[in-house]
Amino acid sequence: MPHHRIGAHTLIFPNRPRILASASVVGPKEGRGPWGESFDLVINDPLFGQKSYEQAEKAMYREACERCMKKASVARDEVQALLGGDLMNQIMASSLAARALEIPFLGLYGACSTMAEALLLGSILIDGGYASPVLCAAGSHYCTAERQYRFPLEYGNQRSMAAQWTVTGAGACLVGEAGPCLARVSYATIGQAVDMEISDVSNMGAAMAGAAADTLKRHFLDTGSTPKSYDRIVTGDLGQVGTDILMALMADSGYPLSRENHMDCGLSMYDQKEDVHAGGSGCGCSASLLSACILPRLHSGDWKRVLFMATGALLSPTTSQQGESIPGIAHALTLERGE
Amino acid sequence: MPHHRIGAHTLIFPNRPRILASASVVGPKEGRGPWGESFDLVINDPLFGQKSYEQAEKAMYREACERCMKKASVARDEVQALLGGDLMNQIMASSLAARALEIPFLGLYGACSTMAEALLLGSILIDGGYASPVLCAAGSHYCTAERQYRFPLEYGNQRSMAAQWTVTGAGACLVGEAGPCLARVSYATIGQAVDMEISDVSNMGAAMAGAAADTLKRHFLDTGSTPKSYDRIVTGDLGQVGTDILMALMADSGYPLSRENHMDCGLSMYDQKEDVHAGGSGCGCSASLLSACILPRLHSGDWKRVLFMATGALLSPTTSQQGESIPGIAHALTLERGE
Repeated sequence: MPHHRIGAHTLIFPNRPRILASASVVGPKEGRGPWGESFDLVINDPLFGQKSYEQAEKAMYREACERCMKKASVARDEVQALLGGDLMNQIMASSLAARALEIPFLGLYGACSTMAEALLLGSILIDGGYASPVLCAAGSHYCTAERQYRFPLEYGNQRSMAAQWTVTGAGACLVGEAGPCLARVSYATIGQAVDMEISDVSNMGAAMAGAAADTLKRHFLDTGSTPKSYDRIVTGDLGQVGTDILMALMADSGYPLSRENHMDCGLSMYDQKEDVHAGGSGCGCSASLLSACILPRLHSGDWKRVLFMATGALLSPTTSQQGESIPGIAHALTLERGE
Repeated sequence: MPHHRIGAHTLIFPNRPRILASASVVGPKEGRGPWGESFDLVINDPLFGQKSYEQAEKAMYREACERCMKKASVARDEVQALLGGDLMNQIMASSLAARALEIPFLGLYGACSTMAEALLLGSILIDGGYASPVLCAAGSHYCTAERQYRFPLEYGNQRSMAAQWTVTGAGACLVGEAGPCLARVSYATIGQAVDMEISDVSNMGAAMAGAAADTLKRHFLDTGSTPKSYDRIVTGDLGQVGTDILMALMADSGYPLSRENHMDCGLSMYDQKEDVHAGGSGCGCSASLLSACILPRLHSGDWKRVLFMATGALLSPTTSQQGESIPGIAHALTLERGE
């Protein structure tokens, strides 16, 4: 039996699965941000023509998947699996999109780490020859997340300065074994749940920073790489608070990150004047910027090697009300310029 | 690149991953049922010594994982991934158990199909040489499910006759590449979301039956097998209503099932006198009976070949309140006697 492992936590993909195409759909606030021109679709109405925000989230998710397949000129009955999730209870945006798309569906939940988890499992399916092509997708919506985790928007709840703004957006990647591609996946490091003993639900960044540092260290140790091996270390949505903690933890660990080669999707999504406090968050944050920013730069050759590590905060309103602290999780993938 | 596919929806595992050990933990009502003697642990107190039902669900999940590793004499730092989920919002039972176990964690959500989804993805990790051993687990708890999906128990809500009783239980399997085993996994069919246009949240069986029939037909077509190729076709938790519909759908499809070689975990879990109406349900139903009934029979040689197909109803209280119908999903695995 072949062994595609290096170190305790990292997988090697000898066939280097190819990201054949990607697509992103975001809301109006995200469209006004620095990457506004790069998304495939910016919707003007957060309801996206639907009757509820939940249905809008599903519609965005589906739209990202359909645009991604269209870009790759692949029909949906050729896609052998859809791997993905979102933040809604019972990942209903993904489930309802999967029903509409009629693609075999493997539902995932990794909070805001979901896009990395989907790409990790999707790459295994491709690399091992179990399916090709597969769609990997994740999404989130500010209005469904606020209603579910905090308060319906109509309450006009005051937000803490450590709070992040859930991105209204979805991103999808089509991964396959052959053909021209945007980037290739060569390694993946599976993260474990790390608890920083944070129980403040308005401080996700701090809750996730420990998991981010843990996965990064394991990845560097397993692969013999260092932060300098990458053009960018991309984190999902640590925001300002989480990024500062990650920098401190990595400096202590012997693998210091520099501000120059670190990028946090949560800190990159919004314009300063949007007043999102500590930054963006949500599955849709890293998923949409993977498509709109990271993959195009790998494709153009601006970047040759990126570590894409989405981070998730594992909490529910119920566990928080019961006083539980919030474990974080982070999965990392080495993305390389395709050839 | 190797290709491990047969037909449109089915994967072949040439290395036939081995289920090295399994364990189950259930509640008192399940312990009084026909399989009461076969579970590894029957808890007398639905709180399992914890302060909340949510914490009890986590503790059961963790206990099933730990007992499983102990049976295989594998330390938790040897386990390279935990794949699993549950029914709690944001799969918190699994996430908190993963934190305690300190095993790299890939969170899944497939409603009551989760045990099959975990075993499917876990088998891919093993078969492709990406990890070994891996833990696959799922669980549910009657009291957390009622609080979340319907009403807290204190309301004394009247249950419909089509309703099923969420199993308080958890099951775990350790899957690896070598060594003595309970059974081996040779094929897996990934299901797609199928909607029967059922919106009655007290009739999950009917909502899932269409997906069960769809996955079964695809599996038989892809592999050239028939219901007679199996000693048992095991469904997860269709209950009485769903089982009757599945029988009718399969009779129409040209692959009629017989009552003799079909087993539904939901119909097998409880004693008639427990008055659970249409039967048991929940991720923990098929997960615990896989460990307590199915794998032991494959190990003893009573059964040589079983199709294990857990079924899930993809709904949330929010989508149901918004009038959405309930898509079902089902994933199937061919389990063969180990040698």
